[in-house]
Amino acid sequence: MSDLTFRTAGRDDLHAVVSLLADDELAENREKPVDGAGVGEEYVKAFAAMETEHYNHMLLAESDGRVVGCLQLVFVPGLSRRGAKRAIVESVRVVSDLRGKNVGTALMKEAIRRAREGGCTLVQLTSDTRRARAHLFYRRLGFTQSHFGFKKEL
Amino acid sequence: MSDLTFRTAGRDDLHAVVSLLADDELAENREKPVDGAGVGEEYVKAFAAMETEHYNHMLLAESDGRVVGCLQLVFVPGLSRRGAKRAIVESVRVVSDLRGKNVGTALMKEAIRRAREGGCTLVQLTSDTRRARAHLFYRRLGFTQSHFGFKKEL
Repeated sequence: MSDLTFRTAGRDDLHAVVSLLADDELAENREKPVDGAGVGEEYVKAFAAMETEHYNHMLLAESDGRVVGCLQLVFVPGLSRRGAKRAIVESVRVVSDLRGKNVGTALMKEAIRRAREGGCTLVQLTSDTRRARAHLFYRRLGFTQSHFGFKKEL
Repeated sequence: MSDLTFRTAGRDDLHAVVSLLADDELAENREKPVDGAGVGEEYVKAFAAMETEHYNHMLLAESDGRVVGCLQLVFVPGLSRRGAKRAIVESVRVVSDLRGKNVGTALMKEAIRRAREGGCTLVQLTSDTRRARAHLFYRRLGFTQSHFGFKKEL
């Protein structure tokens, strides 16, 4: 394959993209079959959201005016899963002298509440394989440890 | 901890947030120590980028005018790792009759090139634990399988 070219998708590419997304053994039941040359309205809306929606904040937990925890909450509209918007969580921290007191649980629940309120249908995050206590923490919050996380420094 | 309140961080919270980010056994060497009540300029710039930068596109690979592969490429500015901007890759697909011909490799390399050009210092993605061939594919591209990926449907 030496003749490949690359470009950013436009509105007119949606039929081809959704067909590709559905052409996958794990994902085929997640997508909506494409009729003729058209595409479901949910994908059209999701594509517009990719171009316009922007949500990227640090959420803080405070106690008596002191910042005691934080996490980064990002909403990412996309086409997969019938145009699902996903929330991505990064940089979860609780101040060291208050760990083990459910600050992290409350913070994550607030993040999940905001994600749901913002129209997200999925929340996802990665956790270093060495953080065994964190993995238990996320499973208790109802997360499924279904993926591996890959990173590459540039 | 019943007196917790939650709010979105503003510019004046940066000192507290960076202190929290550094207060972690795995991340402490990634952050820059905070001087007095101030914060390094890289964090100020990163915070501004979180508020304003927006990049969320489907990247397509074409061959002879046919869309043969796609991936979603999202740039996420953040405060961790000294204000690193990370690229997140989702929904990687290659059309079924052209798999095994390095279309995915070329597509990922183009995504990495765009991420680097866009100022990202990290590329990350998650892959379902059942996709053993995909894991090998990402490791061959120089990714480290260092994390677990957690998802929760809302």
